[in-house]
Amino acid sequence: MASVPHDDNYCAGGAGQLGQPIPPEPAPFPPFPVLNSERIYDSPWVGLRRDTLALPGGAVQEHHVVEISPAVVIVPVLEGGTIAFVGQFRHALQTTRWELPAGRLATGEDPGDGARRELLEETGLAVGELQPLPGFHPTGGISPHYAHAFLALGCRRVCAPNPDPSELLLQREFTRAEAEALLDAGQLTDGFTALALMYALRGGLSD
Amino acid sequence: MASVPHDDNYCAGGAGQLGQPIPPEPAPFPPFPVLNSERIYDSPWVGLRRDTLALPGGAVQEHHVVEISPAVVIVPVLEGGTIAFVGQFRHALQTTRWELPAGRLATGEDPGDGARRELLEETGLAVGELQPLPGFHPTGGISPHYAHAFLALGCRRVCAPNPDPSELLLQREFTRAEAEALLDAGQLTDGFTALALMYALRGGLSD
Repeated sequence: MASVPHDDNYCAGGAGQLGQPIPPEPAPFPPFPVLNSERIYDSPWVGLRRDTLALPGGAVQEHHVVEISPAVVIVPVLEGGTIAFVGQFRHALQTTRWELPAGRLATGEDPGDGARRELLEETGLAVGELQPLPGFHPTGGISPHYAHAFLALGCRRVCAPNPDPSELLLQREFTRAEAEALLDAGQLTDGFTALALMYALRGGLSD
Repeated sequence: MASVPHDDNYCAGGAGQLGQPIPPEPAPFPPFPVLNSERIYDSPWVGLRRDTLALPGGAVQEHHVVEISPAVVIVPVLEGGTIAFVGQFRHALQTTRWELPAGRLATGEDPGDGARRELLEETGLAVGELQPLPGFHPTGGISPHYAHAFLALGCRRVCAPNPDPSELLLQREFTRAEAEALLDAGQLTDGFTALALMYALRGGLSD
């Protein structure tokens, strides 16, 4: 199972940005005992297993777990203040939509290193300052998959994009107001994109 | 493949909330021709297939697609203004975290009906007014899975929660300030929760 890191860099300490105390975590439930675990599929891109769980009360239930390696998503802000997006074709969706640069980490790769690598590959941008944003489990009900998120400030174009042959990408910069208009219109349907952008905006990303 | 609905209720028309024009969608890339598609696994909970794609330039690449039925996530606001969360154990993560109520739609179920059903099952709350928020693809790089999001206003407790035996749930209400403190501390690591909550907050959810 992939590790489940906890972003405690974003707002350390016992109070939030406005001095509001941070409510504690819920009291943890004891894990369901796993009676059996069957490997259904393995590949470098996705694994699938079927666990048989003993539920409280005595029932037994199958529970599928989709295994996907950790990912990274980046909000790249150029020196002039615009935000770099890519127009990306997604085979799973059969659509081309505006997204923030994102990708999988290599095995053992540091998330910050992976963010710099993915950004350079997809956009040709080098990062000035990389700041962690809260990460997230995109589909925690069925997968331990975790996405690390970063705000990349002071980005500069240093080379041409060099994406993977399976990645069809357009380059485009939006002002913060344009990015917010896309968000509020419901056009940023990529969850990684909408979530990382909103964390960046909450953190005070300026125009 | 699951359908890919488009939320155009959130902000209809050609301009965003601040009158900013909404940038157009990117020019669509032509889909990759699918040379072969193998069924790897089928179940009511998750399907997996392996497509063989013809990439531009002549290369051939395998691409996995994880099939998960559409889901719904709800931001339930009680008449007094607090937001109802559940403390939920997730087997895939082996953790108990604060989340917004969410779940899968039944086959053919209307998303609004599914939102009301899931909310009642998980919390015992009935909805006053249900407003659509932008939906999203949690993991569009590998799955057409789509999540519908709703803001549920004027919620009232009408019965005890009646969750599925596999769902271990705590009930808790947070003020908007407490929910924002959890968000900014990076403690709402469930992507559905953080994304739907931020859309609700952007829409002006009042204290």
